[in-house]
Amino acid sequence: MPDEFDVIRWVREQPPLGGGTGFVVVPPGDDLAVLKWPADDLLLVGCDQVLDGIHFDSSTASPRQIGQKVMNRNLSDCAAMACLPAAAVVTVALPRGAGADYAKELYLGLREAADPFDCPIVGGDTASWDGKLVMTVSILGRSAGVAPVTRNGARPGDGIYVTGPLGGSILGRHLTFEPRVTLARQIVPSMGPSAMIDLSDGLSRDLRHICEESQVGAVIDAAAVPIHDDALMLMQRDGISPLEHALHDGEDYELLLTAKPRKAFLVTWIGTIVEEPGVWLQTEGAREPLEPRGWEYKL
Amino acid sequence: MPDEFDVIRWVREQPPLGGGTGFVVVPPGDDLAVLKWPADDLLLVGCDQVLDGIHFDSSTASPRQIGQKVMNRNLSDCAAMACLPAAAVVTVALPRGAGADYAKELYLGLREAADPFDCPIVGGDTASWDGKLVMTVSILGRSAGVAPVTRNGARPGDGIYVTGPLGGSILGRHLTFEPRVTLARQIVPSMGPSAMIDLSDGLSRDLRHICEESQVGAVIDAAAVPIHDDALMLMQRDGISPLEHALHDGEDYELLLTAKPRKAFLVTWIGTIVEEPGVWLQTEGAREPLEPRGWEYKL
Repeated sequence: MPDEFDVIRWVREQPPLGGGTGFVVVPPGDDLAVLKWPADDLLLVGCDQVLDGIHFDSSTASPRQIGQKVMNRNLSDCAAMACLPAAAVVTVALPRGAGADYAKELYLGLREAADPFDCPIVGGDTASWDGKLVMTVSILGRSAGVAPVTRNGARPGDGIYVTGPLGGSILGRHLTFEPRVTLARQIVPSMGPSAMIDLSDGLSRDLRHICEESQVGAVIDAAAVPIHDDALMLMQRDGISPLEHALHDGEDYELLLTAKPRKAFLVTWIGTIVEEPGVWLQTEGAREPLEPRGWEYKL
Repeated sequence: MPDEFDVIRWVREQPPLGGGTGFVVVPPGDDLAVLKWPADDLLLVGCDQVLDGIHFDSSTASPRQIGQKVMNRNLSDCAAMACLPAAAVVTVALPRGAGADYAKELYLGLREAADPFDCPIVGGDTASWDGKLVMTVSILGRSAGVAPVTRNGARPGDGIYVTGPLGGSILGRHLTFEPRVTLARQIVPSMGPSAMIDLSDGLSRDLRHICEESQVGAVIDAAAVPIHDDALMLMQRDGISPLEHALHDGEDYELLLTAKPRKAFLVTWIGTIVEEPGVWLQTEGAREPLEPRGWEYKL
Protein backbone atom coordinates (compact mmCIF):
# COMPACT_ATOMS: atom_id res chain seq x y z
CA MET A 1 0.00 0.00 0.00
CA PRO A 2 1.94 3.07 -1.17
CA ASP A 3 -0.22 5.22 1.06
CA GLU A 4 0.01 2.90 4.06
CA PHE A 5 1.69 5.49 6.23
CA ASP A 6 -0.87 8.10 5.16
CA VAL A 7 -3.66 5.83 6.34
CA ILE A 8 -1.81 5.14 9.59
CA ARG A 9 -1.34 8.87 10.09
CA TRP A 10 -5.04 9.43 9.43
CA VAL A 11 -5.95 6.69 11.90
CA ARG A 12 -3.80 8.28 14.57
CA GLU A 13 -5.52 11.62 13.96
CA GLN A 14 -9.00 10.18 14.54
CA PRO A 15 -10.66 11.31 17.76
CA PRO A 16 -10.04 8.88 20.60
CA LEU A 17 -12.82 7.39 22.65
CA GLY A 18 -14.79 9.70 24.87
CA GLY A 19 -13.90 7.97 28.06
CA GLY A 20 -12.70 4.43 27.97
CA THR A 21 -8.96 4.67 27.25
CA GLY A 22 -7.94 5.51 30.77
CA PHE A 23 -5.57 2.60 31.11
CA VAL A 24 -3.70 3.17 27.83
CA VAL A 25 -0.22 4.37 28.84
CA VAL A 26 1.38 4.31 25.36
CA PRO A 27 -1.14 4.69 22.51
CA PRO A 28 -0.89 3.16 19.01
CA GLY A 29 2.15 4.22 16.99
CA ASP A 30 4.94 2.40 18.77
CA ASP A 31 6.06 -1.22 18.38
CA LEU A 32 3.48 -2.21 20.98
CA ALA A 33 0.86 -0.32 22.95
CA VAL A 34 1.26 -0.20 26.72
CA LEU A 35 -1.66 -0.64 29.10
CA LYS A 36 -1.94 -0.44 32.87
CA TRP A 37 -4.13 -3.44 33.57
CA PRO A 38 -6.60 -2.98 36.45
CA ALA A 39 -5.25 -5.07 39.32
CA ASP A 40 -8.59 -6.63 40.24
CA ASP A 41 -9.50 -7.70 36.72
CA LEU A 42 -8.86 -11.02 35.07
CA LEU A 43 -7.55 -10.57 31.51
CA LEU A 44 -9.42 -12.37 28.74
CA VAL A 45 -7.91 -12.66 25.29
CA GLY A 46 -8.79 -14.21 21.93
CA CYS A 47 -8.97 -13.51 18.21
CA ASP A 48 -11.18 -13.96 15.17
CA GLN A 49 -10.63 -13.37 11.49
CA VAL A 50 -12.89 -12.64 8.51
CA LEU A 51 -11.98 -13.73 4.98
CA ASP A 52 -13.46 -12.41 1.75
CA GLY A 53 -15.58 -15.16 0.20
CA ILE A 54 -16.01 -16.97 3.51
CA HIS A 55 -17.26 -14.59 6.18
CA PHE A 56 -18.33 -11.79 3.86
CA ASP A 57 -18.55 -11.05 0.14
CA SER A 58 -16.69 -7.85 -0.66
CA SER A 59 -18.72 -7.40 -3.84
CA THR A 60 -21.87 -6.84 -1.78
CA ALA A 61 -20.75 -5.98 1.77
CA SER A 62 -19.52 -2.45 2.35
CA PRO A 63 -16.10 -1.95 3.96
CA ARG A 64 -17.92 -0.31 6.87
CA GLN A 65 -19.92 -3.53 7.38
CA ILE A 66 -16.82 -5.72 7.08
CA GLY A 67 -15.00 -3.71 9.74
CA GLN A 68 -18.04 -3.89 11.98
CA LYS A 69 -18.36 -7.63 11.51
CA VAL A 70 -14.81 -8.59 12.45
CA MET A 71 -14.94 -6.39 15.54
CA ASN A 72 -18.40 -7.61 16.51
CA ARG A 73 -17.37 -11.26 16.22
CA ASN A 74 -14.72 -10.56 18.83
CA LEU A 75 -17.06 -8.53 21.00
CA SER A 76 -19.43 -11.49 20.83
CA ASP A 77 -16.66 -13.67 22.26
CA CYS A 78 -16.46 -11.20 25.14
CA ALA A 79 -20.22 -11.60 25.60
CA ALA A 80 -19.82 -15.38 25.64
CA MET A 81 -17.40 -15.06 28.56
CA ALA A 82 -19.41 -12.24 30.20
CA CYS A 83 -16.43 -9.89 30.22
CA LEU A 84 -16.17 -6.24 29.21
CA PRO A 85 -14.22 -5.44 26.02
CA ALA A 86 -11.10 -3.51 27.02
CA ALA A 87 -8.86 -3.09 23.97
CA ALA A 88 -8.37 -4.49 20.47
CA VAL A 89 -5.60 -4.84 17.89
CA VAL A 90 -6.29 -5.28 14.18
CA THR A 91 -4.55 -6.65 11.11
CA VAL A 92 -5.63 -5.89 7.55
CA ALA A 93 -4.39 -7.60 4.39
CA LEU A 94 -5.73 -5.23 1.76
CA PRO A 95 -6.11 -6.14 -1.92
CA ARG A 96 -3.67 -4.08 -3.93
CA GLY A 97 -5.44 -1.08 -5.40
CA ALA A 98 -8.25 -1.04 -2.85
CA GLY A 99 -7.13 2.42 -1.92
CA ALA A 100 -6.91 4.61 1.14
CA ASP A 101 -10.61 5.47 1.25
CA TYR A 102 -11.54 1.80 1.41
CA ALA A 103 -9.05 1.25 4.24
CA LYS A 104 -10.47 4.21 6.13
CA GLU A 105 -14.00 2.82 5.80
CA LEU A 106 -12.82 -0.49 7.25
CA TYR A 107 -11.38 1.41 10.20
CA LEU A 108 -14.56 3.43 10.71
CA GLY A 109 -16.53 0.19 10.77
CA LEU A 110 -14.22 -1.18 13.47
CA ARG A 111 -14.70 1.97 15.48
CA GLU A 112 -18.48 1.98 15.08
CA ALA A 113 -18.58 -1.49 16.60
CA ALA A 114 -16.01 -0.93 19.35
CA ASP A 115 -16.73 2.63 20.49
CA PRO A 116 -20.07 1.89 22.17
CA PHE A 117 -18.17 -0.47 24.48
CA ASP A 118 -15.39 2.00 25.24
CA CYS A 119 -12.99 -0.44 23.61
CA PRO A 120 -10.02 1.40 22.07
CA ILE A 121 -8.08 0.04 19.08
CA VAL A 122 -4.55 0.16 20.43
CA GLY A 123 -2.54 -1.38 17.62
CA GLY A 124 -2.53 -2.83 14.16
CA ASP A 125 -0.68 -4.02 11.13
CA THR A 126 -1.59 -3.30 7.51
CA ALA A 127 -0.19 -4.65 4.26
CA SER A 128 -1.27 -4.82 0.64
CA TRP A 129 -1.15 -7.97 -1.41
CA ASP A 130 -2.49 -9.65 -4.52
CA GLY A 131 -4.96 -11.70 -2.46
CA LYS A 132 -8.42 -10.92 -1.20
CA LEU A 133 -9.27 -8.93 1.91
CA VAL A 134 -8.42 -10.50 5.27
CA MET A 135 -9.06 -8.80 8.59
CA THR A 136 -8.33 -10.06 12.07
CA VAL A 137 -9.09 -8.63 15.47
CA SER A 138 -7.60 -9.74 18.75
CA ILE A 139 -9.59 -8.63 21.73
CA LEU A 140 -8.73 -8.08 25.36
CA GLY A 141 -11.54 -8.26 27.88
CA ARG A 142 -11.67 -7.65 31.61
CA SER A 143 -13.74 -9.49 34.14
CA ALA A 144 -14.79 -6.26 35.91
CA GLY A 145 -16.54 -7.94 38.80
CA VAL A 146 -18.14 -10.83 36.92
CA ALA A 147 -16.44 -14.24 36.94
CA PRO A 148 -15.85 -15.47 33.36
CA VAL A 149 -18.34 -18.11 32.20
CA THR A 150 -16.69 -21.04 30.46
CA ARG A 151 -18.08 -23.89 28.34
CA ASN A 152 -17.35 -26.70 30.75
CA GLY A 153 -19.71 -26.17 33.67
CA ALA A 154 -22.99 -27.58 32.32
CA ARG A 155 -24.54 -30.22 34.64
CA PRO A 156 -27.34 -32.75 34.14
CA GLY A 157 -30.64 -31.13 34.98
CA ASP A 158 -29.56 -27.65 33.88
CA GLY A 159 -31.86 -25.84 31.52
CA ILE A 160 -30.61 -24.71 28.10
CA TYR A 161 -31.41 -21.14 27.08
CA VAL A 162 -30.86 -18.76 24.16
CA THR A 163 -31.04 -14.97 24.07
CA GLY A 164 -32.97 -14.57 20.83
CA PRO A 165 -34.52 -16.13 17.73
CA LEU A 166 -32.30 -18.17 15.43
CA GLY A 167 -31.85 -18.96 11.75
CA GLY A 168 -31.51 -17.24 8.40
CA SER A 169 -28.69 -14.87 9.35
CA ILE A 170 -27.36 -15.19 5.81
CA LEU A 171 -30.09 -12.78 4.72
CA GLY A 172 -28.04 -10.01 6.28
CA ARG A 173 -27.96 -10.34 10.06
CA HIS A 174 -24.53 -11.99 9.93
CA LEU A 175 -23.21 -8.54 8.99
CA THR A 176 -25.38 -6.38 11.23
CA PHE A 177 -25.80 -8.33 14.49
CA GLU A 178 -25.25 -6.68 17.85
CA PRO A 179 -22.91 -8.52 20.20
CA ARG A 180 -24.70 -9.44 23.43
CA VAL A 181 -22.13 -7.91 25.76
CA THR A 182 -24.53 -5.87 27.86
CA LEU A 183 -27.08 -8.67 27.94
CA ALA A 184 -24.43 -11.12 29.15
CA ARG A 185 -23.56 -8.83 32.03
CA GLN A 186 -27.25 -8.75 33.00
CA ILE A 187 -27.83 -12.48 32.59
CA VAL A 188 -24.90 -13.69 34.63
CA PRO A 189 -25.84 -12.17 37.98
CA SER A 190 -29.48 -13.15 37.59
CA MET A 191 -29.17 -16.61 36.00
CA GLY A 192 -25.79 -17.79 37.28
CA PRO A 193 -25.09 -19.72 34.06
CA SER A 194 -23.05 -22.89 34.38
CA ALA A 195 -21.80 -22.64 30.77
CA MET A 196 -22.10 -20.13 27.95
CA ILE A 197 -21.05 -19.76 24.30
CA ASP A 198 -22.01 -17.45 21.45
CA LEU A 199 -23.84 -18.99 18.51
CA SER A 200 -21.42 -18.57 15.64
CA ASP A 201 -21.22 -22.11 14.23
CA GLY A 202 -24.92 -22.87 14.70
CA LEU A 203 -26.94 -24.28 17.59
CA SER A 204 -26.31 -27.93 16.68
CA ARG A 205 -22.53 -27.36 16.68
CA ASP A 206 -22.15 -24.88 19.49
CA LEU A 207 -24.31 -26.89 21.89
CA ARG A 208 -22.04 -29.83 21.11
CA HIS A 209 -19.02 -27.72 22.15
CA ILE A 210 -20.64 -27.12 25.55
CA CYS A 211 -21.57 -30.81 25.90
CA GLU A 212 -18.08 -32.03 25.00
CA GLU A 213 -16.33 -29.58 27.30
CA SER A 214 -18.77 -30.32 30.13
CA GLN A 215 -18.92 -34.09 29.45
CA VAL A 216 -22.70 -34.11 29.38
CA GLY A 217 -25.48 -34.49 26.80
CA ALA A 218 -28.39 -32.27 25.78
CA VAL A 219 -32.00 -32.62 24.64
CA ILE A 220 -33.44 -29.73 22.63
CA ASP A 221 -37.23 -29.31 22.62
CA ALA A 222 -38.02 -28.66 18.96
CA ALA A 223 -41.19 -26.75 19.79
CA ALA A 224 -39.33 -24.39 22.11
CA VAL A 225 -36.61 -23.17 19.72
CA PRO A 226 -37.30 -19.52 18.89
CA ILE A 227 -37.22 -19.06 15.14
CA HIS A 228 -36.21 -15.84 13.46
CA ASP A 229 -38.38 -14.31 10.74
CA ASP A 230 -35.35 -14.59 8.47
CA ALA A 231 -35.57 -18.39 8.73
CA LEU A 232 -39.20 -18.21 7.52
CA MET A 233 -38.19 -15.98 4.62
CA LEU A 234 -35.33 -18.27 3.73
CA MET A 235 -37.68 -21.25 3.57
CA GLN A 236 -39.51 -19.49 0.72
CA ARG A 237 -36.24 -19.53 -1.14
CA ASP A 238 -34.70 -22.90 -0.37
CA GLY A 239 -37.57 -25.06 0.92
CA ILE A 240 -35.64 -25.94 4.07
CA SER A 241 -37.80 -25.76 7.20
CA PRO A 242 -37.39 -22.77 9.51
CA LEU A 243 -36.55 -25.15 12.38
CA GLU A 244 -33.70 -26.65 10.37
CA HIS A 245 -32.39 -23.15 9.72
CA ALA A 246 -32.66 -22.28 13.41
CA LEU A 247 -30.82 -25.44 14.44
CA HIS A 248 -27.98 -25.30 11.94
CA ASP A 249 -27.51 -21.95 10.23
CA GLY A 250 -24.98 -20.29 12.49
CA GLU A 251 -23.84 -16.68 12.71
CA ASP A 252 -26.78 -15.80 14.94
CA TYR A 253 -24.43 -14.38 17.58
CA GLU A 254 -27.05 -14.92 20.25
CA LEU A 255 -25.84 -16.47 23.50
CA LEU A 256 -26.44 -20.13 24.31
CA LEU A 257 -26.27 -20.86 28.03
CA THR A 258 -27.06 -23.49 30.62
CA ALA A 259 -28.25 -22.82 34.15
CA LYS A 260 -30.17 -24.43 36.96
CA PRO A 261 -33.83 -24.28 35.91
CA ARG A 262 -35.50 -21.11 37.08
CA LYS A 263 -37.83 -18.43 35.86
CA ALA A 264 -35.98 -17.33 32.78
CA PHE A 265 -34.89 -13.71 32.62
CA LEU A 266 -34.17 -12.18 29.21
CA VAL A 267 -33.70 -15.66 27.73
CA THR A 268 -35.79 -18.48 26.24
CA TRP A 269 -35.73 -22.07 27.50
CA ILE A 270 -35.05 -24.57 24.70
CA GLY A 271 -34.02 -27.81 26.41
CA THR A 272 -32.29 -29.71 29.18
CA ILE A 273 -28.80 -30.97 29.91
CA VAL A 274 -28.68 -34.75 30.48
CA GLU A 275 -26.07 -37.18 31.72
CA GLU A 276 -25.78 -39.33 28.59
CA PRO A 277 -23.36 -37.78 26.07
CA GLY A 278 -24.82 -36.61 22.77
CA VAL A 279 -27.22 -34.00 21.48
CA TRP A 280 -30.86 -34.89 20.73
CA LEU A 281 -33.88 -33.19 19.29
CA GLN A 282 -37.17 -33.94 21.07
CA THR A 283 -40.24 -33.59 18.86
CA GLU A 284 -43.81 -34.51 19.74
CA GLY A 285 -43.36 -38.07 18.63
CA ALA A 286 -39.71 -38.92 19.04
CA ARG A 287 -36.23 -38.13 20.31
CA GLU A 288 -33.65 -38.20 17.53
CA PRO A 289 -29.93 -37.45 17.41
CA LEU A 290 -29.28 -33.87 16.34
CA GLU A 291 -26.30 -34.09 14.03
CA PRO A 292 -24.00 -31.06 13.79
CA ARG A 293 -24.71 -29.47 10.45
CA GLY A 294 -23.74 -25.87 11.01
CA TRP A 295 -21.71 -24.29 8.26
CA GLU A 296 -18.43 -23.44 9.85
CA TYR A 297 -17.71 -21.00 7.02
CA LYS A 298 -20.28 -19.74 4.63
CA LEU A 299 -21.77 -16.67 3.04
CA MET B 1 -10.99 -27.13 6.66
CA PRO B 2 -12.99 -30.37 7.09
CA ASP B 3 -10.50 -31.50 9.70
CA GLU B 4 -10.36 -28.16 11.50
CA PHE B 5 -11.62 -29.62 14.75
CA ASP B 6 -9.17 -32.50 14.46
CA VAL B 7 -6.31 -30.04 14.21
CA ILE B 8 -7.67 -28.04 17.13
CA ARG B 9 -7.97 -31.25 19.15
CA TRP B 10 -4.38 -32.14 18.26
CA VAL B 11 -3.20 -28.67 19.24
CA ARG B 12 -4.90 -28.98 22.61
CA GLU B 13 -3.18 -32.31 23.16
CA GLN B 14 0.29 -30.88 22.61
CA PRO B 15 2.43 -30.65 25.73
CA PRO B 16 2.17 -27.26 27.41
CA LEU B 17 5.15 -25.16 28.25
CA GLY B 18 7.45 -26.42 30.94
CA GLY B 19 7.01 -23.47 33.21
CA GLY B 20 5.67 -20.25 31.85
CA THR B 21 1.90 -20.68 31.84
CA GLY B 22 1.45 -19.98 35.51
CA PHE B 23 -0.95 -17.11 34.99
CA VAL B 24 -3.24 -18.91 32.53
CA VAL B 25 -6.50 -19.48 34.40
CA VAL B 26 -8.57 -20.80 31.48
CA PRO B 27 -6.50 -22.37 28.70
CA PRO B 28 -7.29 -22.40 24.94
CA GLY B 29 -10.55 -24.09 23.98
CA ASP B 30 -13.11 -21.63 25.27
CA ASP B 31 -14.39 -18.45 23.61
CA LEU B 32 -11.51 -16.56 25.19
CA ALA B 33 -8.56 -17.57 27.34
CA VAL B 34 -8.41 -16.14 30.86
CA LEU B 35 -5.18 -14.84 32.41
CA LYS B 36 -4.38 -13.50 35.84
CA TRP B 37 -2.20 -10.55 34.95
CA PRO B 38 0.67 -9.87 37.38
CA ALA B 39 -0.32 -6.76 39.32
CA ASP B 40 3.07 -5.06 39.02
CA ASP B 41 3.43 -5.55 35.28
CA LEU B 42 2.46 -3.17 32.54
CA LEU B 43 0.67 -4.99 29.71
CA LEU B 44 2.06 -4.52 26.20
CA VAL B 45 0.07 -5.61 23.17
CA GLY B 46 0.41 -5.59 19.39
CA CYS B 47 0.07 -7.74 16.29
CA ASP B 48 1.81 -8.64 13.05
CA GLN B 49 0.74 -10.66 10.04
CA VAL B 50 2.59 -12.59 7.33
CA LEU B 51 1.15 -13.01 3.83
CA ASP B 52 2.19 -15.56 1.25
CA GLY B 53 4.00 -13.75 -1.57
CA ILE B 54 4.82 -10.76 0.62
CA HIS B 55 6.52 -11.90 3.82
CA PHE B 56 7.34 -15.42 2.69
CA ASP B 57 7.04 -17.62 -0.38
CA SER B 58 5.17 -20.81 0.46
CA SER B 59 6.76 -22.57 -2.52
CA THR B 60 10.19 -22.33 -0.88
CA ALA B 61 9.61 -21.65 2.83
CA SER B 62 8.57 -24.61 4.96
CA PRO B 63 5.43 -24.31 7.11
CA ARG B 64 7.70 -24.68 10.13
CA GLN B 65 9.65 -21.59 9.00
CA ILE B 66 6.48 -19.63 8.30
CA GLY B 67 5.11 -20.33 11.76
CA GLN B 68 8.44 -19.34 13.27
CA LYS B 69 8.57 -16.12 11.29
CA VAL B 70 5.18 -14.75 12.25
CA MET B 71 5.81 -15.51 15.92
CA ASN B 72 9.34 -14.12 15.79
CA ARG B 73 8.16 -10.87 14.19
CA ASN B 74 5.94 -10.38 17.22
CA LEU B 75 8.63 -11.42 19.67
CA SER B 76 10.85 -8.86 17.97
CA ASP B 77 8.25 -6.20 18.78
CA CYS B 78 8.55 -7.27 22.40
CA ALA B 79 12.31 -6.83 22.12
CA ALA B 80 11.82 -3.35 20.68
CA MET B 81 9.85 -2.38 23.80
CA ALA B 82 12.17 -4.35 26.14
CA CYS B 83 9.28 -6.40 27.53
CA LEU B 84 8.99 -10.14 28.14
CA PRO B 85 6.63 -12.09 25.86
CA ALA B 86 3.76 -13.36 28.00
CA ALA B 87 1.11 -14.91 25.75
CA ALA B 88 0.08 -15.04 22.09
CA VAL B 89 -3.03 -15.68 20.02
CA VAL B 90 -2.89 -16.80 16.39
CA THR B 91 -5.12 -16.76 13.31
CA VAL B 92 -4.52 -18.92 10.26
CA ALA B 93 -6.25 -18.61 6.87
CA LEU B 94 -5.23 -21.88 5.27
CA PRO B 95 -5.40 -22.56 1.53
CA ARG B 96 -8.06 -25.19 0.90
CA GLY B 97 -6.42 -28.57 0.55
CA ALA B 98 -3.27 -27.65 2.46
CA GLY B 99 -4.16 -30.41 4.88
CA ALA B 100 -3.88 -31.14 8.56
CA ASP B 101 -0.17 -32.00 8.47
CA TYR B 102 0.68 -28.63 6.98
CA ALA B 103 -1.40 -26.90 9.67
CA LYS B 104 0.37 -28.88 12.38
CA GLU B 105 3.77 -27.85 11.01
CA LEU B 106 2.71 -24.20 11.14
CA TYR B 107 1.77 -24.70 14.78
CA LEU B 108 5.05 -26.43 15.61
CA GLY B 109 6.89 -23.50 14.05
CA LEU B 110 4.97 -21.09 16.26
CA ARG B 111 5.81 -23.17 19.31
CA GLU B 112 9.51 -23.46 18.40
CA ALA B 113 9.72 -19.68 18.34
CA ALA B 114 7.59 -18.99 21.42
CA ASP B 115 8.57 -21.80 23.79
CA PRO B 116 12.09 -20.53 24.53
CA PHE B 117 10.48 -17.38 25.91
CA ASP B 118 7.91 -19.26 28.01
CA CYS B 119 5.23 -17.60 25.90
CA PRO B 120 2.13 -19.83 25.68
CA ILE B 121 -0.25 -19.74 22.72
CA VAL B 122 -3.55 -19.18 24.50
CA GLY B 123 -6.00 -18.86 21.62
CA GLY B 124 -6.53 -18.94 17.91
CA ASP B 125 -8.85 -19.04 14.95
CA THR B 126 -8.44 -21.18 11.84
CA ALA B 127 -10.32 -21.22 8.56
CA SER B 128 -9.78 -22.58 5.08
CA TRP B 129 -10.30 -20.53 1.96
CA ASP B 130 -9.47 -20.30 -1.73
CA GLY B 131 -6.80 -17.67 -1.05
CA LYS B 132 -3.17 -17.97 -0.09
CA LEU B 133 -1.83 -18.55 3.41
CA VAL B 134 -2.23 -15.73 5.92
CA MET B 135 -1.07 -15.97 9.52
CA THR B 136 -1.33 -13.38 12.25
CA VAL B 137 -0.05 -13.32 15.79
CA SER B 138 -1.09 -10.93 18.51
CA ILE B 139 1.34 -10.79 21.36
CA LEU B 140 1.03 -9.79 24.99
CA GLY B 141 4.17 -8.68 26.78
CA ARG B 142 4.84 -7.73 30.38
CA SER B 143 7.21 -5.09 31.63
CA ALA B 144 8.59 -7.35 34.38
CA GLY B 145 10.67 -4.70 36.05
CA VAL B 146 11.91 -2.86 32.96
CA ALA B 147 10.12 0.31 31.84
CA PRO B 148 8.99 -0.01 28.19
CA VAL B 149 11.21 1.86 25.71
CA THR B 150 9.22 3.88 23.19
CA ARG B 151 10.22 5.57 19.92
CA ASN B 152 9.73 9.14 21.06
CA GLY B 153 12.52 9.78 23.55
CA ALA B 154 15.54 10.41 21.31
CA ARG B 155 17.31 13.72 22.10
CA PRO B 156 19.94 15.75 20.21
CA GLY B 157 23.38 14.50 21.16
CA ASP B 158 22.24 10.92 21.73
CA GLY B 159 24.24 8.22 20.02
CA ILE B 160 22.55 5.83 17.57
CA TYR B 161 23.29 2.13 17.97
CA VAL B 162 22.41 -1.21 16.39
CA THR B 163 22.68 -4.70 17.82
CA GLY B 164 24.15 -6.44 14.78
CA PRO B 165 25.18 -6.35 11.12
CA LEU B 166 22.60 -5.34 8.54
CA GLY B 167 21.59 -6.09 4.96
CA GLY B 168 20.83 -9.02 2.70
CA SER B 169 18.25 -10.72 4.92
CA ILE B 170 16.40 -11.81 1.79
CA LEU B 171 19.03 -14.55 1.39
CA GLY B 172 17.29 -16.37 4.22
CA ARG B 173 17.77 -14.54 7.50
CA HIS B 174 14.31 -12.97 7.20
CA LEU B 175 12.98 -16.46 7.95
CA THR B 176 15.51 -17.59 10.53
CA PHE B 177 16.35 -14.51 12.63
CA GLU B 178 16.33 -14.63 16.40
CA PRO B 179 14.30 -11.93 18.12
CA ARG B 180 16.50 -9.83 20.41
CA VAL B 181 14.34 -10.20 23.50
CA THR B 182 17.08 -11.29 25.87
CA LEU B 183 19.52 -8.78 24.45
CA ALA B 184 17.01 -5.97 24.92
CA ARG B 185 16.61 -6.86 28.57
CA GLN B 186 20.42 -6.65 28.96
CA ILE B 187 20.83 -3.43 26.99
CA VAL B 188 18.17 -1.41 28.76
CA PRO B 189 19.63 -1.45 32.27
CA SER B 190 23.16 -0.81 30.99
CA MET B 191 22.51 1.70 28.20
CA GLY B 192 19.30 3.40 29.35
CA PRO B 193 18.10 3.87 25.77
CA SER B 194 16.02 6.97 25.05
CA ALA B 195 14.28 5.31 22.08
CA MET B 196 14.24 1.86 20.51
CA ILE B 197 12.70 0.06 17.52
CA ASP B 198 13.30 -3.22 15.75
CA LEU B 199 14.65 -3.07 12.20
CA SER B 200 11.86 -4.54 10.13
CA ASP B 201 11.35 -1.88 7.46
CA GLY B 202 15.05 -1.11 7.02
CA LEU B 203 17.43 1.29 8.78
CA SER B 204 16.57 4.27 6.57
CA ARG B 205 12.86 3.87 7.33
CA ASP B 206 12.95 2.76 10.93
CA LEU B 207 15.37 5.50 11.97
CA ARG B 208 12.92 7.94 10.41
CA HIS B 209 10.14 6.53 12.62
CA ILE B 210 12.25 7.32 15.70
CA CYS B 211 13.11 10.79 14.39
CA GLU B 212 9.50 11.67 13.58
CA GLU B 213 8.16 10.42 16.90
CA SER B 214 10.96 12.15 18.81
CA GLN B 215 10.89 15.32 16.65
CA VAL B 216 14.63 15.20 16.03
CA GLY B 217 16.99 14.41 13.16
CA ALA B 218 19.79 11.88 12.70
CA VAL B 219 23.20 11.62 11.03
CA ILE B 220 24.42 8.12 10.18
CA ASP B 221 28.17 7.60 9.80
CA ALA B 222 28.46 5.50 6.64
CA ALA B 223 31.76 3.98 7.72
CA ALA B 224 30.33 2.82 11.04
CA VAL B 225 27.34 0.84 9.77
CA PRO B 226 28.00 -2.87 10.41
CA ILE B 227 27.39 -4.81 7.22
CA HIS B 228 26.23 -8.40 7.16
CA ASP B 229 28.04 -10.96 5.00
CA ASP B 230 24.71 -11.53 3.27
CA ALA B 231 24.88 -7.97 1.93
CA LEU B 232 28.27 -8.73 0.40
CA MET B 233 26.94 -11.90 -1.18
CA LEU B 234 23.91 -10.09 -2.49
CA MET B 235 26.13 -7.51 -4.18
CA GLN B 236 27.57 -10.32 -6.30
CA ARG B 237 24.08 -10.95 -7.54
CA ASP B 238 22.57 -7.50 -7.99
CA GLY B 239 25.51 -5.08 -8.10
CA ILE B 240 24.03 -2.95 -5.33
CA SER B 241 26.64 -1.93 -2.77
CA PRO B 242 26.67 -3.69 0.59
CA LEU B 243 26.17 -0.33 2.34
CA GLU B 244 23.01 0.30 0.33
CA HIS B 245 21.73 -3.11 1.35
CA ALA B 246 22.54 -2.43 5.00
CA LEU B 247 20.79 0.94 4.90
CA HIS B 248 17.63 -0.10 3.11
CA ASP B 249 17.00 -3.85 2.99
CA GLY B 250 14.88 -4.37 6.07
CA GLU B 251 13.88 -7.54 7.91
CA ASP B 252 17.14 -7.54 9.86
CA TYR B 253 15.22 -7.67 13.15
CA GLU B 254 18.19 -6.19 14.97
CA LEU B 255 17.42 -3.41 17.43
CA LEU B 256 18.02 0.24 16.61
CA LEU B 257 18.34 2.43 19.69
CA THR B 258 19.41 5.85 20.85
CA ALA B 259 21.13 6.64 24.13
CA LYS B 260 23.38 9.19 25.74
CA PRO B 261 26.88 8.52 24.32
CA ARG B 262 28.78 6.04 26.46
CA LYS B 263 31.00 3.04 26.12
CA ALA B 264 28.75 0.83 24.04
CA PHE B 265 27.78 -2.51 25.53
CA LEU B 266 26.62 -5.27 23.17
CA VAL B 267 25.84 -2.68 20.49
CA THR B 268 27.59 -0.78 17.67
CA TRP B 269 27.59 3.01 17.37
CA ILE B 270 26.47 4.19 13.93
CA GLY B 271 25.60 7.88 14.29
CA THR B 272 24.21 10.80 16.27
CA ILE B 273 20.82 12.35 16.91
CA VAL B 274 20.68 16.04 15.91
CA GLU B 275 18.19 18.84 16.42
CA GLU B 276 17.41 19.53 12.77
CA PRO B 277 14.70 17.19 11.46
CA GLY B 278 15.69 14.71 8.75
CA VAL B 279 17.99 11.74 8.30
CA TRP B 280 21.44 12.14 6.75
CA LEU B 281 24.28 9.91 5.69
CA GLN B 282 27.75 11.19 6.54
CA THR B 283 30.50 9.91 4.24
CA GLU B 284 34.12 11.00 4.17
CA GLY B 285 33.42 13.81 1.76
CA ALA B 286 29.83 14.84 2.32
CA ARG B 287 26.59 14.74 4.28
CA GLU B 288 23.64 13.77 2.12
CA PRO B 289 19.98 13.16 2.83
CA LEU B 290 19.27 9.47 3.42
CA GLU B 291 15.99 8.82 1.68
CA PRO B 292 13.80 6.04 3.01
CA ARG B 293 14.08 3.21 0.56
CA GLY B 294 13.29 0.19 2.69
CA TRP B 295 10.96 -2.32 1.15
CA GLU B 296 7.96 -2.33 3.38
CA TYR B 297 6.90 -5.68 1.93
CA LYS B 298 9.11 -7.86 -0.12
CA LEU B 299 10.47 -11.32 -0.61
